Amino acid sequence: MKHQYLNNTPPERARELFFSAADACGFRYADELLPVPRTPGRVLSQAVYAAISSPHYNASAMDGIAVRASDTFGASERSPVILPPERYAPVDTGDPLPEGADAVIMIEDVVNDEQGNVTLRAAVSPWTNVRQVGEDLCMGDMIAPTDTRVSPALIGAFLAGGVTEIRVKTKPLFGIIPTGDEIVPPTATPAKGEIIEFNSAVFSAMLEQWDARAKVYEIVRDKKDLLTAALDRALAECDAVLVLAGSSAGRDDYTSEIIAARGEALVHGIGVKPGKPAVLGVAGGKPVVGLPGYPVSAIVIMEEFVRGLIDLYYRRPAAPLQTVEAAAGRRIVSSLKYKEFVRVSLGAVGGVLTAIPLAGGAGVITSLTKADGILEIPQNAEGAEPGDLCRIRLLRDMSEIEQSLIVTGSHDPILDELADLACRQGCGFRIKSTHVGSMGAVTAVRGGQAHMGAIHLLDETTGEYNKSYVEKYFPDGGAVLRKGVKRVQGFIVPKGNPLGVREIADLTRCRFVNRQRGAGTRLLLDCRMRQCGVLPEQIDGYANEKFTHTAVAAAVAAGNADAGLGIYSAAKMYGLDFIPLCDEEYDFLVGAAYADHPYVEAFFRLLRSGEFIARLKEMGGYGVAD
Amino acid sequence: MKHQYLNNTPPERARELFFSAADACGFRYADELLPVPRTPGRVLSQAVYAAISSPHYNASAMDGIAVRASDTFGASERSPVILPPERYAPVDTGDPLPEGADAVIMIEDVVNDEQGNVTLRAAVSPWTNVRQVGEDLCMGDMIAPTDTRVSPALIGAFLAGGVTEIRVKTKPLFGIIPTGDEIVPPTATPAKGEIIEFNSAVFSAMLEQWDARAKVYEIVRDKKDLLTAALDRALAECDAVLVLAGSSAGRDDYTSEIIAARGEALVHGIGVKPGKPAVLGVAGGKPVVGLPGYPVSAIVIMEEFVRGLIDLYYRRPAAPLQTVEAAAGRRIVSSLKYKEFVRVSLGAVGGVLTAIPLAGGAGVITSLTKADGILEIPQNAEGAEPGDLCRIRLLRDMSEIEQSLIVTGSHDPILDELADLACRQGCGFRIKSTHVGSMGAVTAVRGGQAHMGAIHLLDETTGEYNKSYVEKYFPDGGAVLRKGVKRVQGFIVPKGNPLGVREIADLTRCRFVNRQRGAGTRLLLDCRMRQCGVLPEQIDGYANEKFTHTAVAAAVAAGNADAGLGIYSAAKMYGLDFIPLCDEEYDFLVGAAYADHPYVEAFFRLLRSGEFIARLKEMGGYGVAD
Repeated sequence: MKHQYLNNTPPERARELFFSAADACGFRYADELLPVPRTPGRVLSQAVYAAISSPHYNASAMDGIAVRASDTFGASERSPVILPPERYAPVDTGDPLPEGADAVIMIEDVVNDEQGNVTLRAAVSPWTNVRQVGEDLCMGDMIAPTDTRVSPALIGAFLAGGVTEIRVKTKPLFGIIPTGDEIVPPTATPAKGEIIEFNSAVFSAMLEQWDARAKVYEIVRDKKDLLTAALDRALAECDAVLVLAGSSAGRDDYTSEIIAARGEALVHGIGVKPGKPAVLGVAGGKPVVGLPGYPVSAIVIMEEFVRGLIDLYYRRPAAPLQTVEAAAGRRIVSSLKYKEFVRVSLGAVGGVLTAIPLAGGAGVITSLTKADGILEIPQNAEGAEPGDLCRIRLLRDMSEIEQSLIVTGSHDPILDELADLACRQGCGFRIKSTHVGSMGAVTAVRGGQAHMGAIHLLDETTGEYNKSYVEKYFPDGGAVLRKGVKRVQGFIVPKGNPLGVREIADLTRCRFVNRQRGAGTRLLLDCRMRQCGVLPEQIDGYANEKFTHTAVAAAVAAGNADAGLGIYSAAKMYGLDFIPLCDEEYDFLVGAAYADHPYVEAFFRLLRSGEFIARLKEMGGYGVAD
Repeated sequence: MKHQYLNNTPPERARELFFSAADACGFRYADELLPVPRTPGRVLSQAVYAAISSPHYNASAMDGIAVRASDTFGASERSPVILPPERYAPVDTGDPLPEGADAVIMIEDVVNDEQGNVTLRAAVSPWTNVRQVGEDLCMGDMIAPTDTRVSPALIGAFLAGGVTEIRVKTKPLFGIIPTGDEIVPPTATPAKGEIIEFNSAVFSAMLEQWDARAKVYEIVRDKKDLLTAALDRALAECDAVLVLAGSSAGRDDYTSEIIAARGEALVHGIGVKPGKPAVLGVAGGKPVVGLPGYPVSAIVIMEEFVRGLIDLYYRRPAAPLQTVEAAAGRRIVSSLKYKEFVRVSLGAVGGVLTAIPLAGGAGVITSLTKADGILEIPQNAEGAEPGDLCRIRLLRDMSEIEQSLIVTGSHDPILDELADLACRQGCGFRIKSTHVGSMGAVTAVRGGQAHMGAIHLLDETTGEYNKSYVEKYFPDGGAVLRKGVKRVQGFIVPKGNPLGVREIADLTRCRFVNRQRGAGTRLLLDCRMRQCGVLPEQIDGYANEKFTHTAVAAAVAAGNADAGLGIYSAAKMYGLDFIPLCDEEYDFLVGAAYADHPYVEAFFRLLRSGEFIARLKEMGGYGVAD
């Protein structure tokens, strides 16, 4: 087996090496001449000066009559001046003043007799109601300096100044080469072992946001000669090249090698996490980046190195990052070896902003789509303890984060449905749910990290749901319980229930898939196991934990397990069989401070709406609480 | 003469009337199905759910060997387990696990002998180093709710979830009809009386920023039948129509009439300034806006009414405005009749943010390109006194405003040249100059509203420049004087100097164009007039004030004046004759607190740079101070 080793180059050093090499090989904008209306958002490569004055003639600023101001001198109420028709001329706004005229009298102040004589009862000074030549712009004035980004108003100023074409900085063209034997173009029906190639679409969109252009090439198989040919072609056609995947040190990882064959792989392996197995180099006199195959790793490398490369191309400072300070909601552990990029969810509750790290490795792109921000932990730093204030780079507008109802706790797809309904009905806020289980909901509401929590907690002694837990954990009334939905829990098993699962004891004959500790469904299982005298070690897969009902159903559907415990709607979604175990009450624990919060009120209005109840019926397995 | 009257509808009432009429006629998005890679920045019209799980099979998360975890149970340093070749399979990252395998051992931990037997010294638990089905997304999971704006990462999540096409909200198409007898398409050589039509390009760019599309029609002359035909065509082809100009109450203002003929002109005349003469209506079941011809007025109406109309179309809340608090740097007077939109320049000096209103009427688009923000003064409010804290809507990023060197005072084109040079050399800050004359510079530096000021102040008694003024106005050393450039002042007269202007006394025979009060050039004139015994009332045009040297030259070039006083470079730019009067010293007054400020130091480095000195030579009439 082939062995390569990755370095662990500190990111600052990697940037320095890469950018100075890119600079040395002339990675820099050229300029292009474009018609002004095609330049919004572009960046000037040189200053723009007015070619003509604006206005370029003396123009009337009003509808009225143009006069010589000196003809009006001395006019007053007592001794009006009468102008015969040949001493004035009617003008509309924008009309040039006739020869000799130097003032305009507004139409509202003009009284004329049948012969056309105009009576003036006040004098006007020269240039009254006249837009003199150059009022807006004088020929030769600089309209905007180099590096200005063209705004709509600037478009107007250029055209007003008689400038119809301007020089702007070219956009760098990045060639994107997706590679891999297992990679296929986007499809809804991939075969086993086929990986959908979506990174090129993601990076094209990122490049577009950063004022660059992308050209995506066909997928190339993991053969060194094919990869080299693809690289050569992209180097010939583009300003820089991104090679997707093959950047690590495995059997089929050739990116570093093919770059080295055409130039130099300056860095192979960077001390960032995720993102370590990246290659930065120069080939054929152009910058080349080997991006890791895992999307989150690759996005980190794009943000940390490709974005800066584009700034270098434009010779512009990096755009300032939008950041915010938030308290760590949990312990966040970081390796000393890497600069770490932790995706966090931000919750603004009661004026306090809390950052919760999101689960999911470098392959979990939804950890990025769900993230509100990124916590960067430098190399040689250890992370954060709960409550520590951390600076978070924002991925969303702060207003969107602030206008959110935080519902944490037990998972149910209805939370997503409610979130969607809130958007469709234009409620003006987002419903944001995180799945930390029912006990997690209790903790979050107690800690003020959520407005409300979703719970389904069975009291073994009373057989009642939720009520006794609220009394126990909020003895002083820190939270109120509001009814949610009824739902059926049961065994999720393959179609036809081949192992004949009927009761808890049957699980000892199965490969099981479980829910995470603290989940209400896990507590339900544990309670029933105790009642039947079944021990965890008797169940194969008891330690295989999933965070959602759909994840349990997906595991059963994939054959990774023979049975799981979950709700009916998840089984139905996957066409699986469902053996009901019990009805339960899925309710909401609302922090007392937020009991009358407008978002909370809107939430319960949505929950009782006809539209939502119709959706519940469609999903199946739900009942509406009284 | 035709008379119409404009109303003064309060803007809130105008919005209410217009938006409810647009709503009633069904102005609302439809949806369109697009391939995912074409959707960045678009807005979902419905929730998107994963069509498949991701990964959709159990995939190796490492390069290594796939095993059954149960085969490894009991392995330890002391009693290793030996796996024969048929009990494991080599896998690369992303490969599917072979039938029966449920764990992967990293390649780094694998030791195999010549027969291919692998020795394991530790057990692995099931699903170690495996990306189980659904790790990222489970089939049926909601990936994003309605109204989400598609980000690059979401593109990845959609494609990973097997979703290749999504439904997004259509963009509204606005027809733009430029009108007017005097209007011509953009040109560098308009004839007298021709007005360059740039508004359609400005509004197209604004619409694009607000997620709408624009279709610009040919210019239509001010004939009612032609205008009606153009409106009918645009109504047939677009979702909404903007008619440019003709919205007031003059002889040729038909917009209100043609809208009324096809529907209803709901509002004609709005209590906003600038922007009053606007029309809001509905015609042919579609919203129609008659925009004023003056660009700043029209932009206000776009911002206040068209932007909100687009939000209505999308059924989305208005985007939050970026605002900041700043102290009024001068008195700002507002009419009680109108909601007023005052364009302001913002200067961040010594941690204090000051807003200075910019000069220029509704026709001066450069008042917008130079503005950093807009101060909105409600109807029935009176404006602000100096020092009052005002909330300013930002037109630029705050970071750009903060990273600026504020140089206020006397005008010279070299300030623009230095600003451009600072950009070209990537200094990382902007040089922002405002033209308030030399005495304005003294006031601004004293008041802490500028880092530095540009002055050329002649002491009549000593004949020296600047020094005595600094001593007088900064007796305690609040500012330091730094040398700038030498320049020649003189009479700017038409080519051939037809009136034979040689000395101050000759100005009594001319139509003169003057500089504003407080300008160093004005002070120079006044000083010389006193020496010669010439009185202001002896000079025709003494009261005709311009703010820059180029504006003086432009006035002479246009024939609005026979002579002005100014610098050589301005005369040269306009091909005018120049009669030198004196050399002067154009220096910089630096607030003592900023004497060592890095921006100030960079400014003087630029001033002494070879590139700048070469530019001075090109412009002509300058010398470098010692």
